[in-house]
Amino acid sequence: MRPITEEKMAEITAFMEEKKIDLLFLADWENSRDVNLRFLSGHPMDGFLLLTPGGETILIPWDVELAKEHATVDTIITDPDSRTNFEQYVKEVLKSDSPVIGVNAMISYRWIIALKKALPALRIYDNPIEVNELFRKLRSTKTPKELAFLEKAGKIGNKVLKDIEKFAKEVPNGTENDLSFLVMKKIREYGAEDNSFPSLVANVERSHLIHCHPFAGNNQFSKPGLALIDFGALYQGYASDITVPISFGKLTAEQEKIKQTCFAAYEAAIDAIDIGVPLWKISQAAVDVIEKAGFHMPHGLGHGLGLTVHDAPGVRQKPTSEEKLKDFVELKVEEGMVFTIEPGVYVKGAGGQRLENDVMIKNGKVVVYTKSKPLEVE
Amino acid sequence: MRPITEEKMAEITAFMEEKKIDLLFLADWENSRDVNLRFLSGHPMDGFLLLTPGGETILIPWDVELAKEHATVDTIITDPDSRTNFEQYVKEVLKSDSPVIGVNAMISYRWIIALKKALPALRIYDNPIEVNELFRKLRSTKTPKELAFLEKAGKIGNKVLKDIEKFAKEVPNGTENDLSFLVMKKIREYGAEDNSFPSLVANVERSHLIHCHPFAGNNQFSKPGLALIDFGALYQGYASDITVPISFGKLTAEQEKIKQTCFAAYEAAIDAIDIGVPLWKISQAAVDVIEKAGFHMPHGLGHGLGLTVHDAPGVRQKPTSEEKLKDFVELKVEEGMVFTIEPGVYVKGAGGQRLENDVMIKNGKVVVYTKSKPLEVE
Repeated sequence: MRPITEEKMAEITAFMEEKKIDLLFLADWENSRDVNLRFLSGHPMDGFLLLTPGGETILIPWDVELAKEHATVDTIITDPDSRTNFEQYVKEVLKSDSPVIGVNAMISYRWIIALKKALPALRIYDNPIEVNELFRKLRSTKTPKELAFLEKAGKIGNKVLKDIEKFAKEVPNGTENDLSFLVMKKIREYGAEDNSFPSLVANVERSHLIHCHPFAGNNQFSKPGLALIDFGALYQGYASDITVPISFGKLTAEQEKIKQTCFAAYEAAIDAIDIGVPLWKISQAAVDVIEKAGFHMPHGLGHGLGLTVHDAPGVRQKPTSEEKLKDFVELKVEEGMVFTIEPGVYVKGAGGQRLENDVMIKNGKVVVYTKSKPLEVE
Repeated sequence: MRPITEEKMAEITAFMEEKKIDLLFLADWENSRDVNLRFLSGHPMDGFLLLTPGGETILIPWDVELAKEHATVDTIITDPDSRTNFEQYVKEVLKSDSPVIGVNAMISYRWIIALKKALPALRIYDNPIEVNELFRKLRSTKTPKELAFLEKAGKIGNKVLKDIEKFAKEVPNGTENDLSFLVMKKIREYGAEDNSFPSLVANVERSHLIHCHPFAGNNQFSKPGLALIDFGALYQGYASDITVPISFGKLTAEQEKIKQTCFAAYEAAIDAIDIGVPLWKISQAAVDVIEKAGFHMPHGLGHGLGLTVHDAPGVRQKPTSEEKLKDFVELKVEEGMVFTIEPGVYVKGAGGQRLENDVMIKNGKVVVYTKSKPLEVE
């Protein structure tokens, strides 16, 4: 079943009519994922999707049987070699000899090259970023059914919080890998199909990294200082994303400042959320706190949650350059939006702290539906 | 430390000189990964890499601290906002006003759009597929150090084979998820940093799917008929990839034929491997067996293993269309190559079988260094 609503589908075809786009071409393959394929078709992964301005959908899947089980489209191409000769199916659908094909800006360049080779007279719609932004806007609000899945993914995450606390307090010799593994185990026990991403587990020596590498190691987790774990659950394909900042033992003045700044930025951001508020203003509220304290946040404040863990909408700063402002689409908080708030402060040598919870706008209310809070262990 | 050798680096810069490419531009970001960034720089993920024809490397990382710990490059850009204004660093490196920039065909189209906006006079080198093929060729042979990591990843996988056999025989009520979880646990116990991908575990009802979705479910695994598990270990960033075909109980004649055809195709492929043999001929040997039996294999026979689980070289059919033949680079089996052999036969209703092992060419010998074999459970 496809997650997109009829109304949103109509927005896409109206956009195509207006921009004189003859065909929309989506590609989702390993190393170059486009969740819009699943959003528009229900097909989980690996394939091409063609959409005409009349709303006709043609799926060219890698795995035909998988498509038959999951996709809601008008046509499934069942040719088992369609992956390598997809261009012929594009040709068949097109009526014009010099068609305009719309693509998402995130598409792998290889497909553009292949299309141009097969159809030398085609033109790629000249503003693929606009296509990307349209999809992001449509994905930025969720249906009640999607909200229910997201809430469930959040609730599973909440249950794991207790296991993390217990581990931090009662397993002083435990490693990052031990905690990562515990979370993986518990998350499935509580009904998730999987982690929504590999947990990032960083002790004081690694917590200054935004995304530590490897994601977890054989280091003792509870060394004195600032640590964190960033994890999430996947439920029916929908993701939660939670970070717990943890401090072990007595902190230095610098560590204390990092910690307090992070939490103050979090509070400021949560306070700034309200229906109708531009998302960048929420980011600004957190960034103001962090910069006033003399730090710099090296990543965005938050991101949407949905069929991908980094979904629309982004909760980031407004661009400063005029060039980037041209492509900037200001989204405001509205019913059905779901996003993370996750300010972080990182200092090499001292460590980092990030506090992250998931927020949804449901029945006119702002609901912080995950329950992470700073954890202090003696 | 960067995995690429000096000799291979020199091949890239010689290519740039010959093709008059002023700058090579690589991008590795979520949803659009390019392992060549890590291959050329040692930086694990998330960033841009610029390479000049003189061999100068400039890394624009998302996480500066991560880069400092892992990268071997001439310059690391430490501007924390470099992700959003990377174009200025490209401009700074270029001497020409109308430069030619080389990209990998796999790059996300968004970066091409951004570069063209920032540098309207630039030209993208008109054969990005050639760039991609050059990288693939260079990554298709491994150094002795890389071979040692790959072998270790394979050995960890071999240990897990015994656990899979035990589970299949002794846990009749176990689910796909139970087995997936067991593998995840054991793989870490045996020293892997992680699975190299989420295990695909399919009972008879799902084994006809090439890549089942979800990867594992709460279905009983040992239902009578054809099942399989496809899994791998990650060691120091290097992947193994193994599939065990399992049959439970008495098979139907059709199931028996699927099984025998898959194994015969595997034997034919292994027999065809020899130094100097074009890789497509190994694929042809397996495909001949499968097609003679009246089946069609809906995926390639095998793929390289390395820093990514689907690395170079591909072990696939030679293209049949003249257009695709133009881009086709025939690689032959040579010292240092590492690839999977994984023929599969799939029939909806009856199920599927795939047998997969990892092969390396080391000291002039063909070594099948993983030990999967068909498993039969009464």
